[in-house]
Amino acid sequence: MATLYNRIQGRSVERLSALSDGIFAVAMTLLVLDIRLPSATVIHSEGALLNALAAMAPQWITYLMSFLTLGIFWAGQQTQLNHLGEGSRDLTWIHLGFLFAVTLVPLSTRLLGEFIHFRLALMVYWANLLLLGAMLYWSWKHAEAHKLIKEETPPEIRAAICRRIFLAQSLYAIGAALCLVNTYVSIAVIVAIQLNYALAPRLGRERA
Amino acid sequence: MATLYNRIQGRSVERLSALSDGIFAVAMTLLVLDIRLPSATVIHSEGALLNALAAMAPQWITYLMSFLTLGIFWAGQQTQLNHLGEGSRDLTWIHLGFLFAVTLVPLSTRLLGEFIHFRLALMVYWANLLLLGAMLYWSWKHAEAHKLIKEETPPEIRAAICRRIFLAQSLYAIGAALCLVNTYVSIAVIVAIQLNYALAPRLGRERA
Amino acid sequence: MATLYNRIQGRSVERLSALSDGIFAVAMTLLVLDIRLPSATVIHSEGALLNALAAMAPQWITYLMSFLTLGIFWAGQQTQLNHLGEGSRDLTWIHLGFLFAVTLVPLSTRLLGEFIHFRLALMVYWANLLLLGAMLYWSWKHAEAHKLIKEETPPEIRAAICRRIFLAQSLYAIGAALCLVNTYVSIAVIVAIQLNYALAPRLGRERA
Amino acid sequence: MATLYNRIQGRSVERLSALSDGIFAVAMTLLVLDIRLPSATVIHSEGALLNALAAMAPQWITYLMSFLTLGIFWAGQQTQLNHLGEGSRDLTWIHLGFLFAVTLVPLSTRLLGEFIHFRLALMVYWANLLLLGAMLYWSWKHAEAHKLIKEETPPEIRAAICRRIFLAQSLYAIGAALCLVNTYVSIAVIVAIQLNYALAPRLGRERA
Repeated sequence: MATLYNRIQGRSVERLSALSDGIFAVAMTLLVLDIRLPSATVIHSEGALLNALAAMAPQWITYLMSFLTLGIFWAGQQTQLNHLGEGSRDLTWIHLGFLFAVTLVPLSTRLLGEFIHFRLALMVYWANLLLLGAMLYWSWKHAEAHKLIKEETPPEIRAAICRRIFLAQSLYAIGAALCLVNTYVSIAVIVAIQLNYALAPRLGRERA
Repeated sequence: MATLYNRIQGRSVERLSALSDGIFAVAMTLLVLDIRLPSATVIHSEGALLNALAAMAPQWITYLMSFLTLGIFWAGQQTQLNHLGEGSRDLTWIHLGFLFAVTLVPLSTRLLGEFIHFRLALMVYWANLLLLGAMLYWSWKHAEAHKLIKEETPPEIRAAICRRIFLAQSLYAIGAALCLVNTYVSIAVIVAIQLNYALAPRLGRERA
Repeated sequence: MATLYNRIQGRSVERLSALSDGIFAVAMTLLVLDIRLPSATVIHSEGALLNALAAMAPQWITYLMSFLTLGIFWAGQQTQLNHLGEGSRDLTWIHLGFLFAVTLVPLSTRLLGEFIHFRLALMVYWANLLLLGAMLYWSWKHAEAHKLIKEETPPEIRAAICRRIFLAQSLYAIGAALCLVNTYVSIAVIVAIQLNYALAPRLGRERA
Repeated sequence: MATLYNRIQGRSVERLSALSDGIFAVAMTLLVLDIRLPSATVIHSEGALLNALAAMAPQWITYLMSFLTLGIFWAGQQTQLNHLGEGSRDLTWIHLGFLFAVTLVPLSTRLLGEFIHFRLALMVYWANLLLLGAMLYWSWKHAEAHKLIKEETPPEIRAAICRRIFLAQSLYAIGAALCLVNTYVSIAVIVAIQLNYALAPRLGRERA
């Protein structure tokens, strides 16, 4: 009985995409809500305002990093969903798990912005990145196993999607491990990895 | 006169789906806004931060429970909307009532997180679950009575949708009643029911 | 030169619908953010919590009223957009003005919830309702004058859309004027008008 | 290897449009969250409330200005996306950069509302406008260079899109430079430029 109901659930990839776009849109915009600006009651000169904004550097850095994180995983999920021929109830729940991790990003960002020199805050942030990657990996493996991928998708693309997640997560893990040295080193390396995914492949495009 | 206007209203299931996806996306992401992280002004060591995060357990549990609630009802509404051939003014208002209950979820979650050992807070949360289920049930019965369901939908699926809502609500009611013992028991049972809907049918799928 | 650019802007009714659904979804969900729940630090019994929740009646009433407001105007805008064959730059800006009024609803709701016995707060709320109606009226008149309405739309529907707005706004104005007696009377009448639009026509449907 | 993956990313203009509409919708509605209304604990008469609302003029002005900003850039991005035949990974990241600037608008608005007579706050706001324009300009130039624009788009429209951005940004720069006189003059000029884009071309339409 439950099985019949489960067979008719979650068939629409379009609605899953719409929910995902909505959650990413809200999460990306909410990041900014957590930034506490200085108050006019304590700032009385242009110089003091500049200093106050500069002193917020941890918040700016974590904000930029989290926007990059959300952009990278939005693009990654989008690529997967574009190659799905149909959805299923189980796949929908894997993606809801992924979206759960997306809603956690503003929270782990706020934690890291508040405790930027604490390894625990960085570990929580990295755990969030890991959960995002793991859910996307699971989603693709599940879609492959249950033949939900569009038939015209060539095998090398199927492999490329998994390889990309695996490689990115390895780099993030190395970045996170560097918090044994210093959390700022960790953050710098993670941002560098992210900027590489967002920008650098452009440099090497001509070679391909 | 009003009747003519009413006949042309609410015909678009697509727009209703879009509004619904948007409201679910915002509600799912807003849950996180209500989580108050400890402040760096009172936490001075990694150990203290770990303890402070652990002491927030009621907030984590209610957050997880509410994300599951929203995920389950999103999937349930989506299944219904996928089987609708066309909308109507009345059906639109039933779904707006359902969406009203969706926007209440972050609020009843916040109440339960703040007063987790109060039966009243748990009853409010359960009333929210009941309202969500009742509106979805009404929506389906209305769509059946007014022939808004796609013709190709087989009768067993029509019945399965109602049965699923009825069964889930019965289980939630039992879970809520357990608050006579203890609100934590109630919450544990409700989360177990929800995880069963999200995960467990996977285990039994091969048998079907 | 500017004219050429203006001719190619705002042609997509789909994108305008998507932005509108998003703004309505956020506004509907944000209403709940402004509800301040009692804190566990001052509430120590179930009875005290019940009293505290009951004392929040002004917030509950304005919340319900504003959700109805947003639902009614969402349905009204949707009906118009469904009958548009194509958009235009000017029509887009009229709808952006309408959406501006939509984003003001959470704000005027907050003001009314805080100052529920002040006529000024009620007047601000009513001005918001008036602006919403005026923009929708303008939008339809503009679409008629510039032949943006789908050709198959019969003349009686064109007239019905304007009449509906005019009638509703007249009723709201009467409701608002009753604040000379008492703001609670005003609010009760406005909520009754809104519930009539949402529910009552169902009673009379068989007669049509 | 990375190149293969990059070729399959970001092909869907529809998903990019959906994310953009979501981010604009949230940003437009969030502006209102930052407006702090007076509290009923300190306001005891209708007159005092009126004065308090009038004293919030800087917030109202910056709110209006930012809604106009978001409306103008939403319409501008929409026009571009409507003329794109297909997306690409690089174009997606340029638009994510644009959306990053969109999420900054509520923040720079809050800063300007709090420090309305500080040149630094106005410079930050202008930098935000400049970033929005620069990303849209880059997006169009990139789409032209990589042949992503629909073939049927006539050359004069291609040129008009760039010219429009260039002209608007020149006017904004002049407006911002006027903060050497006074920040209120700057804001008045910027709002006048924006209202011109939103309304004034209507006056001259018949001439075209």
